[in-house]
Amino acid sequence: MSDEPGSAPIEGLYAVIPAGGAGTRLWPLSRASSPKFLHDLTGSGRSLLQATWDRLAPLCGTNVVVVTGEPHRAAVAAQLPQLPFDALLAEPSPRDSAAAIGLAAAVLERRDPDAVVASFAADHVIVGEDRFAACVREAVAVARAGYVVTIGIEPTHPATGFGYIQAGSPLEVAGAPRALSVRSFVEKPDEATAAAYLATGEYRWNAGMFVVRASVLLDLLAAYQPTLAAGLRAIAADPARLPEVWPTLTRIAIDHALAEPAARDGQVAVIPGDFGWDDVGDFASLAGLLPKAVDDLRVLGTRAEDVLLRDSSGLVVSSTGRTVALLGLEDVVVVDTPDALLVTTRARAQEVKAVVDRLKESGRTELT
Amino acid sequence: MSDEPGSAPIEGLYAVIPAGGAGTRLWPLSRASSPKFLHDLTGSGRSLLQATWDRLAPLCGTNVVVVTGEPHRAAVAAQLPQLPFDALLAEPSPRDSAAAIGLAAAVLERRDPDAVVASFAADHVIVGEDRFAACVREAVAVARAGYVVTIGIEPTHPATGFGYIQAGSPLEVAGAPRALSVRSFVEKPDEATAAAYLATGEYRWNAGMFVVRASVLLDLLAAYQPTLAAGLRAIAADPARLPEVWPTLTRIAIDHALAEPAARDGQVAVIPGDFGWDDVGDFASLAGLLPKAVDDLRVLGTRAEDVLLRDSSGLVVSSTGRTVALLGLEDVVVVDTPDALLVTTRARAQEVKAVVDRLKESGRTELT
Repeated sequence: MSDEPGSAPIEGLYAVIPAGGAGTRLWPLSRASSPKFLHDLTGSGRSLLQATWDRLAPLCGTNVVVVTGEPHRAAVAAQLPQLPFDALLAEPSPRDSAAAIGLAAAVLERRDPDAVVASFAADHVIVGEDRFAACVREAVAVARAGYVVTIGIEPTHPATGFGYIQAGSPLEVAGAPRALSVRSFVEKPDEATAAAYLATGEYRWNAGMFVVRASVLLDLLAAYQPTLAAGLRAIAADPARLPEVWPTLTRIAIDHALAEPAARDGQVAVIPGDFGWDDVGDFASLAGLLPKAVDDLRVLGTRAEDVLLRDSSGLVVSSTGRTVALLGLEDVVVVDTPDALLVTTRARAQEVKAVVDRLKESGRTELT
Repeated sequence: MSDEPGSAPIEGLYAVIPAGGAGTRLWPLSRASSPKFLHDLTGSGRSLLQATWDRLAPLCGTNVVVVTGEPHRAAVAAQLPQLPFDALLAEPSPRDSAAAIGLAAAVLERRDPDAVVASFAADHVIVGEDRFAACVREAVAVARAGYVVTIGIEPTHPATGFGYIQAGSPLEVAGAPRALSVRSFVEKPDEATAAAYLATGEYRWNAGMFVVRASVLLDLLAAYQPTLAAGLRAIAADPARLPEVWPTLTRIAIDHALAEPAARDGQVAVIPGDFGWDDVGDFASLAGLLPKAVDDLRVLGTRAEDVLLRDSSGLVVSSTGRTVALLGLEDVVVVDTPDALLVTTRARAQEVKAVVDRLKESGRTELT
């Protein structure tokens, strides 16, 4: 069977890559006009979107659909020249993740009634591609059995920035020895709650990874969000109706529209993800992903020799080619772009969003 | 008499402005190719050199001689269009301050045998021009009596970055009620020594301000540094000999060549300077000179509204027009230029020189 562990693409598997999200806490590197997924944040030479493609190609070949906003269609096409023309779906306007992923599923359901869709964000970093692939292969086996399958990341610390998935008992699905039922999805906890979650051993991070038969996704959506499901299937049946129907679709995240109610109905499974994962949510997270260039300095977009350190440590991101000198600053974050410069610390990296909010409030949206 | 306190220019007074010094601790704003004196460091719209001219014009009219390095001749001429063509002396190479000021004195001695020269650095800031002018008028009276006269700044704190002038008894020169004899010049002290100096009430900061008859300057120099004095008078007699003689001149600071030995010989007087003075030696000093733009932010070269502050304070100097966002950093110093960016703190501002030394060592002299 082609869905046994191995290295061949999985027949009937279609990857869906929702490429959205501005990455506001990575300002001024990431902008609404040039969002996080278009950037190489690891120094690999590949953007996060391209790395996502690279990771999925061994599993899906070119059975990949990217859903992005109309403003980013050209940039996505340029970064992914292998992407078939009809596999790039551009949303006329943002309608949240249930519409984005649901549209891809509806299109694929018509193309292949047995299609299994696997949705992975375009702007996350994964370390351990083999272990990731093994998880996806198990998830596909469980999806074929009719479940909505998520891959829940094994927590390494009581993170407060992610939602959690509470697992139940083993599922006993052939080809998926690690599959567990899902009891519930929970929102981002405070630190004490997160620590309590970890102590039980039942909780994994919700990384927004879903594997499910396209028809199951649409049928469940038809039960929970009937207007949305009908609209999506109408667009898939007649793509010319996109401009007319899209603006009427319910704005809702796929977790709320599908995963949470399906979990209550016992329809959701989880494969514990034993690979490294990071959503690169802010510069502290980014610094943690990058290797030390010299001493305690991490660099992105510039050469370590173009950064002069004296009693300093931290992260320098520069797209200007300038020399950057740091003197007497520990754990500093410097993000140097042609029109905007951010100086902060790792400890305050989460608050970059507030700076962007201030820019928006003051009308300087050209910088956001 | 024209040298009584008043507002008319002082007859026979010639200002000498040695315009040198790279201002290394103000890197990357100040460079060897664009030194401190050419920059507007106060946000007044006038460079330090221009402000020095403005301050001296009421005292000397256009009797001003600027001595600068050959590389800066064009920039100085451009900034001071009022400067007579023959009043801009360009040193073929740096030979320290005794040669620079001495050359101007030798040229002026030939032009006017009774000339009094008053030398003021091109890169200092003075607050209280009236009080400054009153000090100069007293200094000129004492210079006419044959003394080398310095203006010693009343210390506001036990600074360790300046040399000190130890004053002796009142001199009783007509038109100079505050004049005191000078016992000695002392080098930059440590903090305890500086505090002890202040406690005596006898010490003032040495701001490098000298007022002296040109002939007295040259005659004293002839006694202490005969080769140097002869060379300077030879150049003044025949300017065509400058390229030949200049490289043979003794490299020595005017304090060592003239002021210190003359003080030992009882030839030096001091007028206590009761005006505000700052040598703008580093960014901490610069921050202290600038008004608060908003909250605890000081800006130079940019608009306060182009700096976003969140739990931050300090100094932003920018010549790029970029938006600068500071998040969670107290007393930070950000200096943003097209090819180099410095991030440090007020407390470490003195060490900027070490950064520049590192650049030179690594061969990146184009940035210094």
